[in-house]
Amino acid sequence: MRTQVGIVGAGPAGLLLSHLLHLQGIDSVILEARTRDYVQHRIRAGLMEHDSAALLRDAGVGARMDREGLVHEGIVLRFGGRSHRIPLAELSGGKTVMIYGQHEVVKDLIAARLAAGTPILFEASDVSVHDVATATPSIRFRHDGRDHTLACDIIAGCDGFHGICRPSLPAGHLSVFDRGYPFGWLGILAEVAPSNDELVYASHDNGFALLTMRSPTVSRLYLQCAPDEDVGAWSDDRIWAELQTRLADRDGFVLKEGPITQKGVTAMRSFVVEPMRAGRLFLLGDAAHIVPPTGAKGMNLAFSDVAILARALTAWYRTGNSDGLEAYSETALRRAWKAERFSWWMTSLLHKFDRHTPFERRLQQAELDYVTTSRAAATTLAENYVGLPLI
Amino acid sequence: MRTQVGIVGAGPAGLLLSHLLHLQGIDSVILEARTRDYVQHRIRAGLMEHDSAALLRDAGVGARMDREGLVHEGIVLRFGGRSHRIPLAELSGGKTVMIYGQHEVVKDLIAARLAAGTPILFEASDVSVHDVATATPSIRFRHDGRDHTLACDIIAGCDGFHGICRPSLPAGHLSVFDRGYPFGWLGILAEVAPSNDELVYASHDNGFALLTMRSPTVSRLYLQCAPDEDVGAWSDDRIWAELQTRLADRDGFVLKEGPITQKGVTAMRSFVVEPMRAGRLFLLGDAAHIVPPTGAKGMNLAFSDVAILARALTAWYRTGNSDGLEAYSETALRRAWKAERFSWWMTSLLHKFDRHTPFERRLQQAELDYVTTSRAAATTLAENYVGLPLI
Repeated sequence: MRTQVGIVGAGPAGLLLSHLLHLQGIDSVILEARTRDYVQHRIRAGLMEHDSAALLRDAGVGARMDREGLVHEGIVLRFGGRSHRIPLAELSGGKTVMIYGQHEVVKDLIAARLAAGTPILFEASDVSVHDVATATPSIRFRHDGRDHTLACDIIAGCDGFHGICRPSLPAGHLSVFDRGYPFGWLGILAEVAPSNDELVYASHDNGFALLTMRSPTVSRLYLQCAPDEDVGAWSDDRIWAELQTRLADRDGFVLKEGPITQKGVTAMRSFVVEPMRAGRLFLLGDAAHIVPPTGAKGMNLAFSDVAILARALTAWYRTGNSDGLEAYSETALRRAWKAERFSWWMTSLLHKFDRHTPFERRLQQAELDYVTTSRAAATTLAENYVGLPLI
Repeated sequence: MRTQVGIVGAGPAGLLLSHLLHLQGIDSVILEARTRDYVQHRIRAGLMEHDSAALLRDAGVGARMDREGLVHEGIVLRFGGRSHRIPLAELSGGKTVMIYGQHEVVKDLIAARLAAGTPILFEASDVSVHDVATATPSIRFRHDGRDHTLACDIIAGCDGFHGICRPSLPAGHLSVFDRGYPFGWLGILAEVAPSNDELVYASHDNGFALLTMRSPTVSRLYLQCAPDEDVGAWSDDRIWAELQTRLADRDGFVLKEGPITQKGVTAMRSFVVEPMRAGRLFLLGDAAHIVPPTGAKGMNLAFSDVAILARALTAWYRTGNSDGLEAYSETALRRAWKAERFSWWMTSLLHKFDRHTPFERRLQQAELDYVTTSRAAATTLAENYVGLPLI
């Protein structure tokens, strides 16, 4: 079996890369360990930056997103019982964000890939990468009960934080940058109309809370909790009571309650490896970096890696010029570190840290005060939230 | 002895408060532990925010400052061997900063006070404050070999971090917010023309360095060092060699060397007490809060306290309305915390922290990259550096 670009992982990164390459006449094969049904229902992030949405639209896979997604022009920061709107569009020259679930993006991209005849080999097992230091790398895997070797020019490691690509690299090739956070998020899906048209980020003495949504009839809500929080200890009543406390404001905000259909705890982590390349193996998305979810940057950061690599591969296949490929890691990392900084900053700004000294707690309050009273400071939040330029 | 406002401390805060009150017809007496010569030659900060300079000018004590001070419209951030100018004036609607030594401000204010006949009692010893919870507070002190009592309506504690006013308050009245830094600044004065027209803030692997100036012929330079650095271990040659290393850039910057006339180590600390008032005793400037010098906020923060209290006292004496006095602590603290935040941020951005993890070091680099590539982020630096509104 042979292709030009062998892609490990049928998440948003791998699927979009395959799609963008296809539009440039470059062939790829996608290997995915899970079933199609699994990846299409894996609930993850659901907020797209302005240029991420435009990228999908320009690539011809944004029609359902534009029909079903929710365009937001602002977010609300709530602290001290007061709400402060950050007018994202006004502060960013008209850019907006799109609420559209990652699994919906995956559905759309899988449909487009299969319609174009790109092979997606679901339930591929025992995947391993070989000879990435040479011009003839390959991927070995097991599929449909048989062993296969996929020869390719380039391997794209889009297999996420727990994937096989990153650990395949020789020890010492990668530098790891890592940070844990002393909390997680207890997240719920609830069958109730969102209580606010825009996302509400609440900083409360009990901890952070976030009101977001999946659709006009489904709310998604989060509570800061212990990193190893026992979901079993959280009855529906306890969850709603705590959400009511943390999301309350003095201006009459009413949090509507409804049946909870899903509960789970998300860990928080910052993680980056450098470089994002070893020979003919390129790492994209979560395979190379993780952000805490506060800034909603995970999928968007994967998309910017994809945009950078797709452009570099297009130039290479057309003209033989490898400058873009040589610069891939540096270019992608520069943007990734800005997203890491923003995600760390949003997380630090809004969460309660038990280890904070009283001075640090006051600094946090002063920063909230500053961000909501300075147009320049609010603009830094807005321009990162709607997304820095993709490339 | 009796006056309306008894002022403890003839630093910039006490002197300017006395001056502004005098312009409104309110009498004051200033008590100062040191000699006139000492306070007029005490080398401290030398950078005035736009509105601080305007405050002196509007109060009729800015003539020499406008003749001899240096107006700066930008600063330079230097890292990775590259220089990045932050155009302060362009980003802040035309605001600038003024380089003019704090001891020069003190000279101008003392001259104005004495010319107007305000008593400044230098070398006042054994100063203590009394009955601040009543409407008839007083200050006792020893002067010219005799004990005195100064009866007043209001006591202004402008006696700095090591003064007697703050510790006079009953235990438990104040909450203390405090942060140390694991480094200090080794500062020198050198008889050589400044090597750059504008201040240069350099972030280097060896540590922070700052190029600033006193005049067109006198440079002031700083090196990040240990908090308890032994100045004796730093020969002139060693100091210049280290400055050459840290301030180097790839664009041909030349650091001119000259005779070093003064060396000293400055400790770095953040400190705030809340509230800034107890009954009839009001704390201003360093008596209430300390910032690390990186953001050049110390004297400016004292001036904003003075402006807030002078306005409140003027209203109270004119109309009996005490709303301004009641709000003094909250108003002054809100601005002080923003300056504390900015000073902490500039310090964190530019210094080398040995305890930083590799992740935190990268975050710092990403923030430098962001601040120098985003107009909004550069504007947050500029608007704080030239100064948020005084009141």
